[in-house]
Amino acid sequence: MNFTIDDIKKLNRVSRLNLINSITGYKPANLIGTQSKKGDLNLAIFSSLVHLGSKPPLFGLVTRPKSIPRHTYSNIIDTNYYTINHISKNMIERAHMTSAKFNKEDSEFKKCNIEEEYIDDFIAPFVKESEVKIGMKFIEEIHIKSNNTILIVGEVVKIIVKEEYLCKDGSINFEKMNTVCISGLDTYYETKKLAKYPYAKR
Amino acid sequence: MNFTIDDIKKLNRVSRLNLINSITGYKPANLIGTQSKKGDLNLAIFSSLVHLGSKPPLFGLVTRPKSIPRHTYSNIIDTNYYTINHISKNMIERAHMTSAKFNKEDSEFKKCNIEEEYIDDFIAPFVKESEVKIGMKFIEEIHIKSNNTILIVGEVVKIIVKEEYLCKDGSINFEKMNTVCISGLDTYYETKKLAKYPYAKR
Repeated sequence: MNFTIDDIKKLNRVSRLNLINSITGYKPANLIGTQSKKGDLNLAIFSSLVHLGSKPPLFGLVTRPKSIPRHTYSNIIDTNYYTINHISKNMIERAHMTSAKFNKEDSEFKKCNIEEEYIDDFIAPFVKESEVKIGMKFIEEIHIKSNNTILIVGEVVKIIVKEEYLCKDGSINFEKMNTVCISGLDTYYETKKLAKYPYAKR
Repeated sequence: MNFTIDDIKKLNRVSRLNLINSITGYKPANLIGTQSKKGDLNLAIFSSLVHLGSKPPLFGLVTRPKSIPRHTYSNIIDTNYYTINHISKNMIERAHMTSAKFNKEDSEFKKCNIEEEYIDDFIAPFVKESEVKIGMKFIEEIHIKSNNTILIVGEVVKIIVKEEYLCKDGSINFEKMNTVCISGLDTYYETKKLAKYPYAKR
Protein backbone atom coordinates (compact mmCIF):
# COMPACT_ATOMS: atom_id res chain seq x y z
CA MET A 1 0.00 0.00 0.00
CA ASN A 2 1.19 3.50 -0.82
CA PHE A 3 -1.02 5.97 1.06
CA THR A 4 -0.85 9.54 -0.21
CA ILE A 5 -1.94 12.48 1.93
CA ASP A 6 -5.33 12.35 0.16
CA ASP A 7 -5.74 8.64 0.89
CA ILE A 8 -5.01 9.32 4.58
CA LYS A 9 -7.57 12.15 4.67
CA LYS A 10 -10.21 9.88 3.12
CA LEU A 11 -9.82 7.12 5.73
CA ASN A 12 -12.70 6.77 8.18
CA ARG A 13 -12.03 8.19 11.65
CA VAL A 14 -11.25 4.90 13.39
CA SER A 15 -8.92 3.60 10.66
CA ARG A 16 -7.04 6.89 10.57
CA LEU A 17 -6.68 6.97 14.35
CA ASN A 18 -5.41 3.38 14.42
CA LEU A 19 -3.04 3.81 11.48
CA ILE A 20 -1.49 7.11 12.57
CA ASN A 21 -1.23 6.05 16.21
CA SER A 22 0.55 2.81 15.31
CA ILE A 23 3.00 3.71 12.53
CA THR A 24 5.53 5.47 14.76
CA GLY A 25 6.53 2.06 16.16
CA TYR A 26 6.62 0.82 19.75
CA LYS A 27 5.96 3.31 22.51
CA PRO A 28 6.72 3.44 26.23
CA ALA A 29 3.94 2.36 28.61
CA ASN A 30 3.62 4.55 31.67
CA LEU A 31 1.03 5.56 34.22
CA ILE A 32 1.04 9.22 35.21
CA GLY A 33 -0.01 9.84 38.81
CA THR A 34 -1.27 13.23 39.99
CA GLN A 35 -3.29 14.77 42.79
CA SER A 36 -5.55 17.82 42.60
CA LYS A 37 -5.25 20.71 45.05
CA LYS A 38 -8.42 19.37 46.69
CA GLY A 39 -6.76 15.97 47.11
CA ASP A 40 -8.51 13.99 44.36
CA LEU A 41 -6.17 11.35 42.91
CA ASN A 42 -5.75 10.73 39.19
CA LEU A 43 -3.94 8.01 37.27
CA ALA A 44 -3.76 7.92 33.47
CA ILE A 45 -1.96 5.83 30.87
CA PHE A 46 0.34 7.75 28.52
CA SER A 47 2.44 6.53 25.59
CA SER A 48 3.72 9.99 24.64
CA LEU A 49 6.61 10.30 27.09
CA VAL A 50 9.80 11.46 25.40
CA HIS A 51 13.36 12.04 26.61
CA LEU A 52 14.46 15.66 26.14
CA GLY A 53 17.84 15.69 27.83
CA SER A 54 19.94 14.25 30.65
CA LYS A 55 21.60 17.37 32.14
CA PRO A 56 19.28 18.58 33.51
CA PRO A 57 17.18 15.37 33.34
CA LEU A 58 14.10 16.52 31.38
CA PHE A 59 11.21 14.57 29.87
CA GLY A 60 8.32 15.75 27.71
CA LEU A 61 4.73 14.51 27.79
CA VAL A 62 2.26 15.33 25.02
CA THR A 63 -1.29 16.06 26.10
CA ARG A 64 -4.45 17.57 24.70
CA PRO A 65 -5.69 20.00 27.35
CA LYS A 66 -8.82 21.07 25.53
CA SER A 67 -10.26 17.57 25.39
CA ILE A 68 -11.90 15.65 28.22
CA PRO A 69 -10.52 14.08 30.39
CA ARG A 70 -7.78 16.55 31.10
CA HIS A 71 -7.38 15.85 34.79
CA THR A 72 -3.70 14.93 34.46
CA TYR A 73 -2.89 18.26 32.81
CA SER A 74 -4.86 20.41 35.25
CA ASN A 75 -3.43 18.59 38.29
CA ILE A 76 0.15 19.08 37.01
CA ILE A 77 -0.43 22.79 36.44
CA ASP A 78 -2.16 23.16 39.83
CA THR A 79 0.34 21.26 41.98
CA ASN A 80 3.60 21.26 39.90
CA TYR A 81 4.34 17.60 40.59
CA TYR A 82 3.54 14.27 38.93
CA THR A 83 4.82 10.71 38.86
CA ILE A 84 5.79 8.38 36.01
CA ASN A 85 5.35 4.66 36.72
CA HIS A 86 6.31 1.77 34.41
CA ILE A 87 3.50 -0.58 33.43
CA SER A 88 4.35 -4.22 34.13
CA LYS A 89 3.05 -7.30 32.35
CA ASN A 90 0.64 -8.22 35.14
CA MET A 91 -0.91 -4.72 35.20
CA ILE A 92 -1.76 -4.16 31.54
CA GLU A 93 -5.51 -4.75 31.71
CA ARG A 94 -5.94 -2.55 34.79
CA ALA A 95 -3.61 0.11 33.33
CA HIS A 96 -5.58 0.17 30.07
CA MET A 97 -8.78 0.75 32.06
CA THR A 98 -7.44 4.09 33.32
CA SER A 99 -8.16 5.46 29.82
CA ALA A 100 -11.90 5.14 30.40
CA LYS A 101 -13.76 8.32 31.28
CA PHE A 102 -14.03 8.77 35.03
CA ASN A 103 -15.33 11.75 36.94
CA LYS A 104 -12.75 14.13 38.40
CA GLU A 105 -13.55 13.05 41.96
CA ASP A 106 -13.15 9.36 41.04
CA SER A 107 -9.69 7.93 41.68
CA GLU A 108 -8.48 5.63 38.90
CA PHE A 109 -6.27 4.00 41.53
CA LYS A 110 -9.43 2.82 43.29
CA LYS A 111 -11.61 2.27 40.22
CA CYS A 112 -8.91 0.26 38.39
CA ASN A 113 -7.61 -1.61 41.43
CA ILE A 114 -4.11 -0.13 41.36
CA GLU A 115 -2.62 0.68 44.75
CA GLU A 116 -1.15 4.15 45.32
CA GLU A 117 2.00 4.79 47.33
CA TYR A 118 3.35 7.99 48.87
CA ILE A 119 7.12 8.21 49.07
CA ASP A 120 8.93 10.64 51.36
CA ASP A 121 7.18 14.01 51.14
CA PHE A 122 6.41 13.80 47.41
CA ILE A 123 2.91 15.20 46.87
CA ALA A 124 1.94 13.14 43.80
CA PRO A 125 0.97 9.46 44.19
CA PHE A 126 3.20 6.67 42.86
CA VAL A 127 2.02 3.24 41.67
CA LYS A 128 3.08 0.81 44.38
CA GLU A 129 3.59 -2.21 42.14
CA SER A 130 5.58 -0.40 39.38
CA GLU A 131 9.19 -1.53 39.06
CA VAL A 132 10.38 1.95 38.09
CA LYS A 133 8.86 5.05 39.69
CA ILE A 134 9.90 8.58 38.78
CA GLY A 135 9.02 11.78 40.62
CA MET A 136 8.70 14.76 38.27
CA LYS A 137 8.63 18.52 38.80
CA PHE A 138 6.78 20.65 36.24
CA ILE A 139 9.09 23.08 34.41
CA GLU A 140 7.21 24.59 31.48
CA GLU A 141 4.32 23.94 29.12
CA ILE A 142 4.82 24.48 25.41
CA HIS A 143 1.91 25.11 23.09
CA ILE A 144 2.12 23.22 19.80
CA LYS A 145 0.24 25.57 17.49
CA SER A 146 -0.12 23.08 14.63
CA ASN A 147 -2.78 21.08 16.46
CA ASN A 148 -3.40 22.75 19.81
CA THR A 149 -1.62 20.15 21.89
CA ILE A 150 0.70 20.82 24.81
CA LEU A 151 4.18 19.50 25.55
CA ILE A 152 4.57 19.34 29.31
CA VAL A 153 8.26 19.63 30.20
CA GLY A 154 9.26 18.21 33.58
CA GLU A 155 12.46 17.55 35.50
CA VAL A 156 13.28 14.23 37.14
CA VAL A 157 13.62 14.86 40.89
CA LYS A 158 13.31 11.32 42.24
CA ILE A 159 13.86 7.79 40.91
CA ILE A 160 12.85 4.65 42.77
CA VAL A 161 14.14 1.36 41.35
CA LYS A 162 15.53 -1.77 42.98
CA GLU A 163 19.32 -1.90 42.87
CA GLU A 164 19.14 -5.34 41.20
CA TYR A 165 17.42 -3.70 38.19
CA LEU A 166 20.40 -1.42 37.48
CA CYS A 167 23.23 -2.33 35.10
CA LYS A 168 26.82 -1.46 35.96
CA ASP A 169 26.79 1.30 33.32
CA GLY A 170 23.88 3.05 35.05
CA SER A 171 21.14 1.92 32.65
CA ILE A 172 18.01 0.02 33.60
CA ASN A 173 18.24 -3.75 33.11
CA PHE A 174 14.97 -4.39 31.33
CA GLU A 175 15.66 -8.11 31.06
CA LYS A 176 15.12 -8.46 34.81
CA MET A 177 11.90 -6.45 34.78
CA ASN A 178 8.39 -6.89 33.45
CA THR A 179 7.94 -3.48 31.80
CA VAL A 180 5.86 -3.63 28.61
CA CYS A 181 5.56 -1.47 25.51
CA ILE A 182 2.57 -0.36 23.43
CA SER A 183 1.63 -0.04 19.80
CA GLY A 184 -1.24 2.13 18.67
CA LEU A 185 -3.98 2.76 21.19
CA ASP A 186 -4.57 -0.68 22.60
CA THR A 187 -1.89 -3.34 22.06
CA TYR A 188 0.67 -4.42 24.66
CA TYR A 189 3.93 -6.34 24.22
CA GLU A 190 6.64 -7.97 26.27
CA THR A 191 10.18 -7.89 24.90
CA LYS A 192 13.27 -10.00 24.39
CA LYS A 193 16.72 -8.43 24.20
CA LEU A 194 18.50 -8.79 20.86
CA ALA A 195 21.74 -6.86 21.38
CA LYS A 196 23.49 -4.06 23.24
CA TYR A 197 26.11 -2.25 21.20
CA PRO A 198 29.02 -0.05 22.20
CA TYR A 199 29.02 3.69 21.46
CA ALA A 200 29.21 3.84 17.67
CA LYS A 201 32.51 4.95 16.12
CA ARG A 202 33.28 4.85 12.44
CA MET B 1 17.50 2.58 45.31
CA ASN B 2 15.86 5.93 45.97
CA PHE B 3 17.72 8.55 43.92
CA THR B 4 17.07 12.15 44.95
CA ILE B 5 17.76 15.07 42.64
CA ASP B 6 21.13 15.49 44.41
CA ASP B 7 22.03 11.83 43.90
CA ILE B 8 21.24 12.19 40.19
CA LYS B 9 23.39 15.34 39.91
CA LYS B 10 26.30 13.54 41.59
CA LEU B 11 26.31 10.60 39.16
CA ASN B 12 29.22 10.50 36.72
CA ARG B 13 28.39 11.61 33.18
CA VAL B 14 28.06 8.13 31.65
CA SER B 15 25.93 6.70 34.46
CA ARG B 16 23.60 9.70 34.37
CA LEU B 17 23.25 9.50 30.58
CA ASN B 18 22.48 5.77 30.73
CA LEU B 19 20.06 6.05 33.65
CA ILE B 20 18.08 9.04 32.37
CA ASN B 21 17.98 7.74 28.81
CA SER B 22 16.66 4.35 29.90
CA ILE B 23 14.10 5.08 32.63
CA THR B 24 11.36 6.33 30.30
CA GLY B 25 10.83 2.74 29.11
CA TYR B 26 10.91 1.28 25.62
CA LYS B 27 11.26 3.67 22.71
CA PRO B 28 10.49 3.49 18.98
CA ALA B 29 13.40 2.65 16.66
CA ASN B 30 13.44 4.67 13.46
CA LEU B 31 15.90 5.87 10.85
CA ILE B 32 15.38 9.44 9.64
CA GLY B 33 16.37 9.97 6.00
CA THR B 34 17.16 13.43 4.62
CA GLN B 35 18.95 15.07 1.74
CA SER B 36 20.78 18.39 1.73
CA LYS B 37 20.11 21.07 -0.88
CA LYS B 38 23.42 20.06 -2.44
CA GLY B 39 22.24 16.46 -2.67
CA ASP B 40 24.24 14.88 0.18
CA LEU B 41 22.26 12.05 1.81
CA ASN B 42 21.92 11.61 5.55
CA LEU B 43 20.50 8.79 7.65
CA ALA B 44 20.31 8.91 11.44
CA ILE B 45 18.80 6.75 14.17
CA PHE B 46 16.24 8.48 16.42
CA SER B 47 14.32 7.16 19.41
CA SER B 48 12.57 10.47 20.15
CA LEU B 49 9.68 10.23 17.70
CA VAL B 50 6.35 11.04 19.33
CA HIS B 51 2.74 11.06 18.10
CA LEU B 52 1.16 14.53 18.36
CA GLY B 53 -2.18 13.99 16.67
CA SER B 54 -4.05 12.11 13.96
CA LYS B 55 -6.10 14.87 12.28
CA PRO B 56 -3.97 16.31 10.83
CA PRO B 57 -1.45 13.43 11.21
CA LEU B 58 1.43 15.09 13.08
CA PHE B 59 4.56 13.66 14.69
CA GLY B 60 7.25 15.33 16.75
CA LEU B 61 10.98 14.61 16.74
CA VAL B 62 13.31 15.91 19.44
CA THR B 63 16.73 17.06 18.30
CA ARG B 64 19.63 19.06 19.61
CA PRO B 65 20.56 21.49 16.83
CA LYS B 66 23.51 23.08 18.57
CA SER B 67 25.40 19.83 18.92
CA ILE B 68 27.32 17.99 16.22
CA PRO B 69 26.19 16.12 14.10
CA ARG B 70 23.11 18.15 13.27
CA HIS B 71 22.82 17.15 9.62
CA THR B 72 19.30 15.77 10.03
CA TYR B 73 18.04 19.04 11.48
CA SER B 74 19.70 21.29 8.91
CA ASN B 75 18.54 19.12 5.99
CA ILE B 76 14.93 19.19 7.24
CA ILE B 77 15.00 22.97 7.60
CA ASP B 78 16.67 23.38 4.19
CA THR B 79 14.44 21.02 2.16
CA ASN B 80 11.23 20.71 4.26
CA TYR B 81 11.00 16.95 3.80
CA TYR B 82 12.25 13.85 5.63
CA THR B 83 11.46 10.16 5.93
CA ILE B 84 10.79 7.91 8.92
CA ASN B 85 11.74 4.25 8.44
CA HIS B 86 11.17 1.41 10.91
CA ILE B 87 14.27 -0.48 12.02
CA SER B 88 13.92 -4.24 11.55
CA LYS B 89 15.61 -7.00 13.52
CA ASN B 90 18.14 -7.75 10.76
CA MET B 91 19.21 -4.08 10.49
CA ILE B 92 19.96 -3.19 14.11
CA GLU B 93 23.75 -3.29 13.96
CA ARG B 94 23.88 -1.23 10.75
CA ALA B 95 21.21 1.17 12.05
CA HIS B 96 23.14 1.68 15.30
CA MET B 97 26.25 2.56 13.26
CA THR B 98 24.47 5.63 11.81
CA SER B 99 24.98 7.28 15.21
CA ALA B 100 28.75 7.42 14.63
CA LYS B 101 30.19 10.78 13.57
CA PHE B 102 30.39 11.04 9.80
CA ASN B 103 31.28 14.07 7.70
CA LYS B 104 28.42 15.98 6.11
CA GLU B 105 29.36 14.80 2.63
CA ASP B 106 29.45 11.15 3.75
CA SER B 107 26.21 9.22 3.22
CA GLU B 108 25.33 6.95 6.14
CA PHE B 109 23.37 4.89 3.63
CA LYS B 110 26.65 4.04 1.93
CA LYS B 111 28.88 3.96 5.02
CA CYS B 112 26.48 1.72 6.97
CA ASN B 113 25.45 -0.49 4.06
CA ILE B 114 21.78 0.51 4.05
CA GLU B 115 20.22 0.90 0.61
CA GLU B 116 18.27 4.10 -0.15
CA GLU B 117 15.07 4.17 -2.20
CA TYR B 118 13.31 7.06 -3.91
CA ILE B 119 9.54 6.76 -4.10
CA ASP B 120 7.43 8.78 -6.53
CA ASP B 121 8.70 12.36 -6.51
CA PHE B 122 9.48 12.49 -2.78
CA ILE B 123 12.75 14.39 -2.35
CA ALA B 124 14.00 12.66 0.83
CA PRO B 125 15.45 9.14 0.66
CA PHE B 126 13.62 6.15 2.17
CA VAL B 127 15.26 2.99 3.55
CA LYS B 128 14.53 0.29 1.00
CA GLU B 129 14.44 -2.64 3.43
CA SER B 130 12.21 -0.96 6.08
CA GLU B 131 8.78 -2.54 6.48
CA VAL B 132 7.11 0.80 7.25
CA LYS B 133 8.22 3.98 5.45
CA ILE B 134 6.70 7.38 6.16
CA GLY B 135 7.17 10.55 4.12
CA MET B 136 7.06 13.69 6.29
CA LYS B 137 6.62 17.39 5.54
CA PHE B 138 8.15 19.90 7.96
CA ILE B 139 5.51 22.08 9.64
CA GLU B 140 7.18 24.02 12.47
CA GLU B 141 10.11 23.91 14.85
CA ILE B 142 9.51 24.59 18.51
CA HIS B 143 12.31 25.74 20.78
CA ILE B 144 12.35 24.05 24.17
CA LYS B 145 13.88 26.77 26.33
CA SER B 146 14.55 24.53 29.34
CA ASN B 147 17.48 22.78 27.64
CA ASN B 148 17.89 24.33 24.18
CA THR B 149 16.48 21.40 22.27
CA ILE B 150 14.10 21.58 19.32
CA LEU B 151 10.84 19.75 18.68
CA ILE B 152 10.48 19.32 14.93
CA VAL B 153 6.79 19.05 14.03
CA GLY B 154 6.01 17.30 10.76
CA GLU B 155 2.93 16.11 8.90
CA VAL B 156 2.59 12.60 7.47
CA VAL B 157 2.18 12.96 3.70
CA LYS B 158 2.97 9.41 2.58
CA ILE B 159 2.90 5.93 4.10
CA ILE B 160 4.33 2.85 2.43
CA VAL B 161 3.49 -0.49 4.04
CA LYS B 162 2.54 -3.88 2.61
CA GLU B 163 -1.19 -4.51 2.76
CA GLU B 164 -0.55 -7.77 4.62
CA TYR B 165 0.91 -5.75 7.52
CA LEU B 166 -2.35 -3.86 8.12
CA CYS B 167 -5.05 -5.01 10.54
CA LYS B 168 -8.71 -4.68 9.64
CA ASP B 169 -9.08 -1.79 12.11
CA GLY B 170 -6.41 0.22 10.28
CA SER B 171 -3.57 -0.37 12.72
CA ILE B 172 -0.19 -1.89 11.88
CA ASN B 173 0.09 -5.61 12.60
CA PHE B 174 3.41 -5.69 14.41
CA GLU B 175 3.23 -9.45 14.91
CA LYS B 176 3.84 -9.96 11.20
CA MET B 177 6.74 -7.53 11.07
CA ASN B 178 10.29 -7.38 12.41
CA THR B 179 10.25 -3.86 13.85
CA VAL B 180 12.31 -3.53 17.04
CA CYS B 181 12.31 -1.17 19.99
CA ILE B 182 15.11 0.45 21.99
CA SER B 183 15.99 1.11 25.59
CA GLY B 184 18.53 3.70 26.58
CA LEU B 185 21.18 4.57 24.01
CA ASP B 186 22.23 1.17 22.81
CA THR B 187 19.94 -1.80 23.53
CA TYR B 188 17.56 -3.37 21.02
CA TYR B 189 14.58 -5.69 21.58
CA GLU B 190 12.11 -7.79 19.63
CA THR B 191 8.60 -8.12 21.01
CA LYS B 192 5.82 -10.59 21.66
CA LYS B 193 2.20 -9.50 21.77
CA LEU B 194 0.46 -9.91 25.13
CA ALA B 195 -3.00 -8.46 24.50
CA LYS B 196 -5.10 -6.04 22.48
CA TYR B 197 -7.96 -4.48 24.43
CA PRO B 198 -11.15 -2.77 23.32
CA TYR B 199 -11.62 0.97 23.82
CA ALA B 200 -11.85 1.33 27.60
CA LYS B 201 -15.25 2.08 29.12
CA ARG B 202 -16.08 2.07 32.81
